[in-house]
Amino acid sequence: MFEARLVSSSTFKKILDAVKDLLNEASFDCSESGIQLQAMDNSHVSLVSLMLRSDGFDKYRCDRSLTMGMNLANMAKIFKCANNDDTVTIKAQDDADTVTFMFEAKKQEKISDYEMKLMNLDQEHLGIPETDFSCVIRMPSPEFARICRDLSQFGESIVISCTKEGVKFSTGGDIGTANVKIAQTNNFDKEEESVTIEMQEPVTLTFACQYLNSFTKATPLAPQVQLSMSDNVPLVVEYQIPDLGHLRFYLAPKIEDDEN
Amino acid sequence: MFEARLVSSSTFKKILDAVKDLLNEASFDCSESGIQLQAMDNSHVSLVSLMLRSDGFDKYRCDRSLTMGMNLANMAKIFKCANNDDTVTIKAQDDADTVTFMFEAKKQEKISDYEMKLMNLDQEHLGIPETDFSCVIRMPSPEFARICRDLSQFGESIVISCTKEGVKFSTGGDIGTANVKIAQTNNFDKEEESVTIEMQEPVTLTFACQYLNSFTKATPLAPQVQLSMSDNVPLVVEYQIPDLGHLRFYLAPKIEDDEN
Amino acid sequence: MFEARLVSSSTFKKILDAVKDLLNEASFDCSESGIQLQAMDNSHVSLVSLMLRSDGFDKYRCDRSLTMGMNLANMAKIFKCANNDDTVTIKAQDDADTVTFMFEAKKQEKISDYEMKLMNLDQEHLGIPETDFSCVIRMPSPEFARICRDLSQFGESIVISCTKEGVKFSTGGDIGTANVKIAQTNNFDKEEESVTIEMQEPVTLTFACQYLNSFTKATPLAPQVQLSMSDNVPLVVEYQIPDLGHLRFYLAPKIEDDEN
Repeated sequence: MFEARLVSSSTFKKILDAVKDLLNEASFDCSESGIQLQAMDNSHVSLVSLMLRSDGFDKYRCDRSLTMGMNLANMAKIFKCANNDDTVTIKAQDDADTVTFMFEAKKQEKISDYEMKLMNLDQEHLGIPETDFSCVIRMPSPEFARICRDLSQFGESIVISCTKEGVKFSTGGDIGTANVKIAQTNNFDKEEESVTIEMQEPVTLTFACQYLNSFTKATPLAPQVQLSMSDNVPLVVEYQIPDLGHLRFYLAPKIEDDEN
Repeated sequence: MFEARLVSSSTFKKILDAVKDLLNEASFDCSESGIQLQAMDNSHVSLVSLMLRSDGFDKYRCDRSLTMGMNLANMAKIFKCANNDDTVTIKAQDDADTVTFMFEAKKQEKISDYEMKLMNLDQEHLGIPETDFSCVIRMPSPEFARICRDLSQFGESIVISCTKEGVKFSTGGDIGTANVKIAQTNNFDKEEESVTIEMQEPVTLTFACQYLNSFTKATPLAPQVQLSMSDNVPLVVEYQIPDLGHLRFYLAPKIEDDEN
Repeated sequence: MFEARLVSSSTFKKILDAVKDLLNEASFDCSESGIQLQAMDNSHVSLVSLMLRSDGFDKYRCDRSLTMGMNLANMAKIFKCANNDDTVTIKAQDDADTVTFMFEAKKQEKISDYEMKLMNLDQEHLGIPETDFSCVIRMPSPEFARICRDLSQFGESIVISCTKEGVKFSTGGDIGTANVKIAQTNNFDKEEESVTIEMQEPVTLTFACQYLNSFTKATPLAPQVQLSMSDNVPLVVEYQIPDLGHLRFYLAPKIEDDEN
């Protein structure tokens, strides 16, 4: 028996909106410690990693570890039927071939349940080594989304250069060139709006706009985004899900030869 | 001479939005008692019935009964040119082949008139027998619209089951199954949000999602919708138009054989 | 060296939105007195004339007159990357083949620069004679936009008739006929909402809806629009840009033969 309950459906809606374009389907690994999802995107370029800790749920019970393969577009369709303030309960029997999503309105006068067929998916367990990064940037997530969207109009790649003073995002193409510079903020009054940089050594790396733009679909999940970069190591774009876990995206930098 | 005036154009806008997808054209029967429209939808499955009482208008004059055949898409185009708080006057000469819609802005500084050609339409006078229904459900119209929209993502038909305790809407398809249960409300503080059920005997009937969804285009007309059901009799979906009349939709239930 | 600065990017955004559908590219003539643009629209029917006075800028420097040919769609793409309250600086070297747009956020923590390639465009210097008009109408610009949009649903041309009492806009087509009458307002409390008419003699002229609708894309620039009309002379549709200049559109009336 597996059962997990959250008093608001909005977190799940945001997670599904964030990953459903990158992943057609995915396996949710449920255990005593929580729900985990790890999958390469549909084109096998970037990696999506979701962790929801069991203690972040309002109710959580997992008698036996189980893996549920789900079609994310269908799951998103189901969650579109929930109001943001509905309580959501995810339920599955051990060895079941379906999962049930139950949505309860605050006043209990409306209860909806959706039973969805599960899928058998090939499991890909990917070891992600813990790394010390040369640069770790924290900045407002809407600002990062805006920069990626703006620059992707002018080129297919974005160069991210990080120094102690700030971060520069650059691109270029037929129309011309574009540079956006963000300075580290000094005032820490509004933590959500601050830009902070932890730097061991400067880094300049190039990434495909298309994937950065996909990652920023997670913007509604968190006010800040964290970018971790080192030479020859995938960029990590991380959104913290308050009190529940995190959603991370990994993307390898383009190497020089890619650009020619 | 026919002349009917309403101090706000918004009711007519809402009526046209509600029926213009179901009906390409329709005959408006104008008499001393008011304006009436009755027509099968374009695919001849459901029936639309509109009644606007003469005493609900701010001015109403109908010297001789007349029938005006109108293209509803064109009529909707004309009403899109009116502001919601414009006064609207509908005028026609006896035996005329045009109808005039006049919109007057509140401050009288802008007056628009649109003259539209009338159409000769075959008249279909349909006798609708008054019936005592096994179940009459009143519920918030936006809730009914939401349920129809949600469930139509998962199947082509919706089963509506009504008991004394509540109403269950169900469907199913390739993705899985969906059930939404609405309980009768006990508090009658907010009449518009209440769910009330008058039941002689329980009823379970199946209807095509497509038509239910079309009917819910009338949602802006009224805060509550009334569903009247009996075995082997068309469902009646009724929206009251405050102080003016009503808009009703009739839809025959699917019989078992339809579903196989 | 050319440099022009405005503390808000929104005026440029609105100008580009107003002209980018009419003009694929255009030459900006920069001199000590300001920035000027004059060009026939893509189909060579109407004329666009923009004047931005140097004293309206927050900083303005133009050592030598220069003409910069720009692709307006690309320029609009660049300005979409600016926030409305960003300071915008336009910079070019003498004889340069690029122009730079710099956007600075209010708090200086974000600076973006976009370098765009310039184009060599054929220059068309058009003499526009100053004329005394038979009728000059000033009316709320959103009202003019609304009337053009509404009437263009019913016909391809709009007849504008101006008398001392008011202005009548008319059209007709397959659906029927439409007339909108606007009266001169007596109260001058709210200047922005007033309709004023200066008339030497009554005028009735016919114009193509398509171009009038394009001109009204300039509506966000100014609360009032001015229409100047005389027989056998192009209509002038003028939007004042507060403290900076104006945007004018010229459109020749349709002659009788055009309509047959």
